[in-house]
Amino acid sequence: MMDQIATNRTDYLYERVVDEISHLVDQGTLRAGDRIPSIRKLSSKDGISVSTVLQAYLVLENKGIIEARPQSGYYVKSHRDLPAEPKPTHPPPTVTAVGVSQLVSQVFHAARDPRVTDLGAATPSPGLLPIKRLNRIVGTLMRRYDPAAINYDFPPGYEPLRRQIAKRSPEFGSSLTADDIITTNGAMEAVNLCIRAVAKAGDIIAIESPTYFGFLQIIESLGMKAVEIPTHARNGILLDELEQLIRRHKIKACLLCTNLSNPLGSSMPDKNKKELVELLARREIPLIEDDIYGDLCFAPLRPKTAKAYDKKGLVLLCSSFSKTVAPGFRVGWAAPGRFRSEVERLKFMNTMATATLPQMTISEFLENGGYDRHLRRLKKRFADQMRFVTDLVSQRFPKETKVTRPAGGYLLWVELPKRVNSLRLHAEALRQNISIAPGPMFSPKNRYENFIRLSCGQTESERIEEAIAKLGRIMKDIR
Amino acid sequence: MMDQIATNRTDYLYERVVDEISHLVDQGTLRAGDRIPSIRKLSSKDGISVSTVLQAYLVLENKGIIEARPQSGYYVKSHRDLPAEPKPTHPPPTVTAVGVSQLVSQVFHAARDPRVTDLGAATPSPGLLPIKRLNRIVGTLMRRYDPAAINYDFPPGYEPLRRQIAKRSPEFGSSLTADDIITTNGAMEAVNLCIRAVAKAGDIIAIESPTYFGFLQIIESLGMKAVEIPTHARNGILLDELEQLIRRHKIKACLLCTNLSNPLGSSMPDKNKKELVELLARREIPLIEDDIYGDLCFAPLRPKTAKAYDKKGLVLLCSSFSKTVAPGFRVGWAAPGRFRSEVERLKFMNTMATATLPQMTISEFLENGGYDRHLRRLKKRFADQMRFVTDLVSQRFPKETKVTRPAGGYLLWVELPKRVNSLRLHAEALRQNISIAPGPMFSPKNRYENFIRLSCGQTESERIEEAIAKLGRIMKDIR
Repeated sequence: MMDQIATNRTDYLYERVVDEISHLVDQGTLRAGDRIPSIRKLSSKDGISVSTVLQAYLVLENKGIIEARPQSGYYVKSHRDLPAEPKPTHPPPTVTAVGVSQLVSQVFHAARDPRVTDLGAATPSPGLLPIKRLNRIVGTLMRRYDPAAINYDFPPGYEPLRRQIAKRSPEFGSSLTADDIITTNGAMEAVNLCIRAVAKAGDIIAIESPTYFGFLQIIESLGMKAVEIPTHARNGILLDELEQLIRRHKIKACLLCTNLSNPLGSSMPDKNKKELVELLARREIPLIEDDIYGDLCFAPLRPKTAKAYDKKGLVLLCSSFSKTVAPGFRVGWAAPGRFRSEVERLKFMNTMATATLPQMTISEFLENGGYDRHLRRLKKRFADQMRFVTDLVSQRFPKETKVTRPAGGYLLWVELPKRVNSLRLHAEALRQNISIAPGPMFSPKNRYENFIRLSCGQTESERIEEAIAKLGRIMKDIR
Repeated sequence: MMDQIATNRTDYLYERVVDEISHLVDQGTLRAGDRIPSIRKLSSKDGISVSTVLQAYLVLENKGIIEARPQSGYYVKSHRDLPAEPKPTHPPPTVTAVGVSQLVSQVFHAARDPRVTDLGAATPSPGLLPIKRLNRIVGTLMRRYDPAAINYDFPPGYEPLRRQIAKRSPEFGSSLTADDIITTNGAMEAVNLCIRAVAKAGDIIAIESPTYFGFLQIIESLGMKAVEIPTHARNGILLDELEQLIRRHKIKACLLCTNLSNPLGSSMPDKNKKELVELLARREIPLIEDDIYGDLCFAPLRPKTAKAYDKKGLVLLCSSFSKTVAPGFRVGWAAPGRFRSEVERLKFMNTMATATLPQMTISEFLENGGYDRHLRRLKKRFADQMRFVTDLVSQRFPKETKVTRPAGGYLLWVELPKRVNSLRLHAEALRQNISIAPGPMFSPKNRYENFIRLSCGQTESERIEEAIAKLGRIMKDIR
């Protein structure tokens, strides 16, 4: 069916693939739920490179025409039963002090009760994590009586782990070496150190809108200011808007989650990442890029990072294994480009060292192949959970509700009818032992009042069903 | 021999004990190396309370008249063969920006080579740490398949560990509850968070002189300024001098290591701690108190902390298990008094959580009695090592060399002849594969040029002997 593509090669071959498949869907040849040819198949059949087909499928996925199902393939997406998606955000283009940490504390404290069904925290259910495998590794390490396991591991951190991370870097488009990397106490510390390496109190940081509350807290705690960039629910920040903000304000750094952002689930197309890096490079503005969800993209090959396009060392890439392997191990890392030695010094001053045993364990897990297998299973579970929760929301929440359709991860950003105040919803839900993350946590000035973030990281179907139904009932009563 | 004490009771009974024993030593009845009556014996014999005798012995120890030998008792101290002690320090009473971190990086990077005999880092030899016991605990925890071990443990941190720490708090004169405590990624993070909770960029922090370079780096990295307090090698900071500094400068907080300070090894007498707390309380100045070496005092009962005298919640006590159990576990804690909730919020923003498994392991180690037994053994080893190194220094270093006589820990602060520049000594020593910590690391403006810190945490006697001899030879050539 793709013969004309092979015979009409142009510089934008992937666009031809995109057009062709879009056309087949539009005319009804391919229908909702149909499987489309696998990347390998299309590539070998039509003599197009795998990477060209992959690029085309990513674009089609971003356009919402097809969807990747982990360990299965690509399918034409069904739109009939899904709730609509939220529109791009349009925060005011002003610089603001940040004040969310009081609210975040309240929400976090409240959710600690084990009777509470937690749809609020972005934590994968422990049942999805490779406990047994990690336990075996720790056991083996312990039996070696290696004194290194209990001794200091000073910055830049455990060398074999840094090597493992570097070895995987081509997957996100980079060719890092162990020396480029500094291990940290989770991505939270990585982002902290990176932002401190490039900016100081009073400086303006540009962020997505909405953005992860942890970022807002970091900015707040360091006495910096934030300016919010309008953001598309699928494609991430709007580059034109960022450019205007840069003209208007003296932006010291950008802090972005370029793949599967939290809470929006947006992923910047690789083309946009490249443009972003170039735009910032022209003005020597550093980009702190958080990629903690990047490995959780449902497509068989994960997307690149902005770091892949970094020629000037201005991108400080941060990530961790908290969302994929073991949150409580607190193993994260930074590849801070030209700010490497400053970040290393700050690491020493901030926490002196990262715990050694967790680093050794993760390193071993990466080295002996457990990670990729685990990741495939995990993504499949998250995809299922996300479909399950989305379906429940569309059945139980008010009709006007809009929901994001992230291409990975396990977070949904839900726009409720204007009349529903999510802080009131949160309070009432908590009284009924349900925890959600209210929208105002994700904005410096507590906007997004009729939004909530739902985590699909939990797996107890009955509890989730019950909780979503209850939330729906509460919303009916709120006005 | 103490009969007159029992019959002449006064309000200052302990001072009578002090006078009596000093007298017996002066007149030669008790000679260097003689064992003096045990606390229990003297107490039961003369009907004086154990705490009174203990207080007297601590004073005698501080005066350098007697010394505690771990697991053995108190002995009249020998002064003949020991090098003299350094005089109290007299840093200029001016406020300075801090600039040590470049130097610290150099020293640290250089010492990583395994061929280097490391007398520089304040790290106990792994052979002294309870590796087997910790390994067994980790193994047991892993076999339980407790998902908690790999999941987030959000601030304030692992509750059973906080309970264990609280349970031990009477030993340092406090009665903390689990709720008073926040666990951290080592004491380094605890001090960081506490200082950020009470001061901001530009503020003035009063510190000991010399002081731990990590503190200087924290102050430097946060854009704060330091003022140095003159310090006595045995009794810690001079309170009159601090009072004058407070009158002269707007001091925002004090940051002190009250027991076995690093590098000086000074311990403030409990009376001074009380006065310090009262002095600061009158002016509402917070005290960040670092007690990481407190459990390593050689006396059978450890000294109090300043926190013991804190009535207004102005003392933020920080400690860790890095110097006693497992540096690489990165388990520390803070008891931040009235700043508790601010420190908890900062903890979340800084690193989100402390690694769970190391916290569980330390908690179990504390709970099942391994800790105290281990501590007794460890202190005995450190006391032996410190005597060993001091003897070597008095044999091999130039005659004018002065050495501290700390009542615990494993650090010696060595004053070399004025002509010896310790940075040059460091450079030349490193070429001969020996690492030391040069004095300028311990002062904001790189003073203490003819001082070095020697760690007695290593145990390979031959290597140490050889290294000290080499250092002595290098010094002869330096001028």
